[in-house]
Amino acid sequence: MIYSKWLMLAACLLLTACEQNKEIAVTDGTSKQVQRPRFEITSDEVFDAGSIPAYAGSHDEIYADIDRNLEQHLANLQRWVRQPSISAQNNGITEMADMLRDDLLAIGFAEAELVPTDGHPGVFAYYDAGAEKTLVVYMMYDVQPVNPEDWRVPPFAGDLVETDLGTVLMARGATNQKGPERALLNALESTISVTGTLPVNLIILAEGEEELGSPHFPQMVDQYKDRLLAADGVFFPFNSQNRSGDIRMILGVKGIIYMELEARGGAHGGPVDHEVHGSLKAYIDSPVWRLVQALASMTTPDGNTILIDGYYDKVQPPPEKDMPLINTMLASTNEAKAMQALGIERWVDGETMQEAQMDYLYNPTLNINGIWAGYTGDGSKTILPHIATAQVDSRLPPGLDPDEMMGLIRTHLDKHGFSDIIIRPMSGYPASQTTLDSKLVQAAISVFNKYGSPPSVEPRLAGSAPFYVFTDILQLPMVFTGIGHGSGAHAPNEIMVIYPKDGSEIAGLAKIEKGYVDILHALASQ
Amino acid sequence: MIYSKWLMLAACLLLTACEQNKEIAVTDGTSKQVQRPRFEITSDEVFDAGSIPAYAGSHDEIYADIDRNLEQHLANLQRWVRQPSISAQNNGITEMADMLRDDLLAIGFAEAELVPTDGHPGVFAYYDAGAEKTLVVYMMYDVQPVNPEDWRVPPFAGDLVETDLGTVLMARGATNQKGPERALLNALESTISVTGTLPVNLIILAEGEEELGSPHFPQMVDQYKDRLLAADGVFFPFNSQNRSGDIRMILGVKGIIYMELEARGGAHGGPVDHEVHGSLKAYIDSPVWRLVQALASMTTPDGNTILIDGYYDKVQPPPEKDMPLINTMLASTNEAKAMQALGIERWVDGETMQEAQMDYLYNPTLNINGIWAGYTGDGSKTILPHIATAQVDSRLPPGLDPDEMMGLIRTHLDKHGFSDIIIRPMSGYPASQTTLDSKLVQAAISVFNKYGSPPSVEPRLAGSAPFYVFTDILQLPMVFTGIGHGSGAHAPNEIMVIYPKDGSEIAGLAKIEKGYVDILHALASQ
Repeated sequence: MIYSKWLMLAACLLLTACEQNKEIAVTDGTSKQVQRPRFEITSDEVFDAGSIPAYAGSHDEIYADIDRNLEQHLANLQRWVRQPSISAQNNGITEMADMLRDDLLAIGFAEAELVPTDGHPGVFAYYDAGAEKTLVVYMMYDVQPVNPEDWRVPPFAGDLVETDLGTVLMARGATNQKGPERALLNALESTISVTGTLPVNLIILAEGEEELGSPHFPQMVDQYKDRLLAADGVFFPFNSQNRSGDIRMILGVKGIIYMELEARGGAHGGPVDHEVHGSLKAYIDSPVWRLVQALASMTTPDGNTILIDGYYDKVQPPPEKDMPLINTMLASTNEAKAMQALGIERWVDGETMQEAQMDYLYNPTLNINGIWAGYTGDGSKTILPHIATAQVDSRLPPGLDPDEMMGLIRTHLDKHGFSDIIIRPMSGYPASQTTLDSKLVQAAISVFNKYGSPPSVEPRLAGSAPFYVFTDILQLPMVFTGIGHGSGAHAPNEIMVIYPKDGSEIAGLAKIEKGYVDILHALASQ
Repeated sequence: MIYSKWLMLAACLLLTACEQNKEIAVTDGTSKQVQRPRFEITSDEVFDAGSIPAYAGSHDEIYADIDRNLEQHLANLQRWVRQPSISAQNNGITEMADMLRDDLLAIGFAEAELVPTDGHPGVFAYYDAGAEKTLVVYMMYDVQPVNPEDWRVPPFAGDLVETDLGTVLMARGATNQKGPERALLNALESTISVTGTLPVNLIILAEGEEELGSPHFPQMVDQYKDRLLAADGVFFPFNSQNRSGDIRMILGVKGIIYMELEARGGAHGGPVDHEVHGSLKAYIDSPVWRLVQALASMTTPDGNTILIDGYYDKVQPPPEKDMPLINTMLASTNEAKAMQALGIERWVDGETMQEAQMDYLYNPTLNINGIWAGYTGDGSKTILPHIATAQVDSRLPPGLDPDEMMGLIRTHLDKHGFSDIIIRPMSGYPASQTTLDSKLVQAAISVFNKYGSPPSVEPRLAGSAPFYVFTDILQLPMVFTGIGHGSGAHAPNEIMVIYPKDGSEIAGLAKIEKGYVDILHALASQ
């Protein structure tokens, strides 16, 4: 699952049309104007989440059970993050799937089983509460790889660390996604312990390949399709608070295509089977130069506007109904804090925050996640490598089809003389969208209002998750939210706040779990 | 030290002027014609090395000593390659320097000492034969890094392997440069053992940083400058035969600049201290794209012509005296075999062999030895890296000054809007040239003629070695030659032939050592 950190934009509500024409030269000697789509804000309406009636229920006995067992609940989170489950490296995957299934059985799920797929196994579980409503909880039990040398603590030690936010769990998976997931299970455990059941029937659908782009998740869903279709919605537990304690509630995600681009020696030139001496560049073509040139042909020199023909053609301008949401986001952000949290000194292209935010919500990206060729060690090695590889992804807003965009990239490379560049698709799926008026969204907002923290409701995340399976294939509303704060997903020193500093608006573990209790009950009563 | 494999060109002696105009677009929207210098062959004269009188001496007792002790001599080579000495990784450097000094003392050098430098130590040794002539032997005791998984045998095991060439020593350093160097010391050992002395006084000057670009070699030379200036020439033992047994004798090397180019996040955009989530490319600049675009701006899309202003301005056309040498090279090559040995299916840009050969001898290169950023492991990781790095080198024919070329690269980057790209120079030195008529060259040729193998004399190697220290600073002739064959320098499965197949024209270890005995005596009698 994908976190942007915060981009809640500042007070200027009207984006002046700032058309930025770029004169781009292409390699056939002609030049053409290429322009990334720019979007205007067309109303000054704001969305006030506080206008939705606060959830009126209170579940004091369950809350008390959470407080009593908090030490054990925290130990559950630590146990989970101490079990590595790096899907990309098949490290600890089976162990983590077993741990999840065993935990679900222990909590009281009558059905809980591993689900074989062509990749890592999933976990399916069902709790029959005899309730009217049925909720699907989507989970991911895998995590991203780590570079331990960049961490303050060992990434799988489950250490509690004192920071300016209070006491945090610092570990790979702390916030993405084991922390909030196990917090939800803690909430279920306390609810069942006190009331003997749950307010809704629950289907748990967990995959171990989210960080790989969920290639086999549709296989899993297919096996339980009939049971899933009968559900009322899908929930994904998520630390939605920012450092200031503000809550965001996000209604969609972008799609993604992820691929490797590779140049190798062959009939088109370059060493075929092995590297050669670097001085031989004088009369041997270089696969590294080919890859670099092929990549470079795809963007403007700043790396920020995509030059692939047609790539922006199906980009959709913001729908009118997004305007109040955007305006609210803009009104509630501290730009300096947002940049500090991201570790940047300017927005892309030197844009204003508002421009950057529109890119974030509505434009596709082309990003190089990694590139490697030849010698990458200490010192130097004078070689002409025979292979060069880059991992590239593109985030796709609604309307951009993964297969079609992959095709445009191939066409671009061929057209610009890079037919020797190999594309190896690694994953791809489209965007997903839920509407503000769905019962699940309204229930979650009502709970936040009970806590006096109306959320900023955002049209979508720039990141990706395979939620199209729910929203497009199963036609179910899907919401990912919750109180609590974390940061560092996919990065070193990933954290989830457990015991916030005095005076902080961030929810600690106990309050996070109580929030999940309320959300389940609020949905049951919608 | 640098091997090209073979480029001895085919029978066509006249290169038709084949001007290849490239229409290149640059990023300011204008376009200009860029053209790599092309050179014509302006005479059909050939150089016949066989016309130089064969060396008449014979040293049968020394030859017999070599034959008697061949097993021990081979064991010396194996002992040397079993001692790793990877300068880039400071692996085994001190141990190898000690081994070299101890071997020199054991052979009978009265003076042999480690020479501290600001980097890895050198080794200096002197053998006073009371002779008229003094020869400097340049040595390098360091080797390139290895990727053991690409090797047929462990690269530091010193294994003998049966191949289509016969029995070979397969190890890092086998041919570059421990094999021929220790073979020369074996020859000295047998000579001293039989005659009680050497025919010339010998200065050994060995460095441990050749593969790093010899950054501290001038420091070493400086300490012994007066003694070196009194010498008659400099010799570097080298396996000069190709797979067919043909001998090449090379009169110079190109210079080099080696640098890292790096893009990092900062005020110009991009994450400053750590990677961020890949989806944030939507509003954050990418250092990887910056590096890719900066690199791409420096060459044509094929990666083969340098677009840096002025880079070709001081390239010198072949001097008239090179023509007979080039014509001889052209006449003695099998193109198919040359391409097979290199592992390529075409010459750069689809050129003819003749065109490629002229590039090899007279044009500068721009080569990417390695590039890395972000995630380079298995599977995928969706990040926007905060650093991207490339190791780039440029080989410089005579007339191109290292500092000046480095300046042109900086100017190019700044001019094209890439002032955010950091250049970290790692090494640099100019080309080196010796003339055909020097006594040392003539002595070596006379020895090859004794063996009935007149060499192909080549103006230069495309590779680099810090021989300018000898030819330019000390004004001494410098020759690197010898019989014997090796391949795989800077690559996996590096070999030196020890016992060639029956009928092969390649010299085995015994003959290689006898050749060195003759070269020393021939020089002494010049």
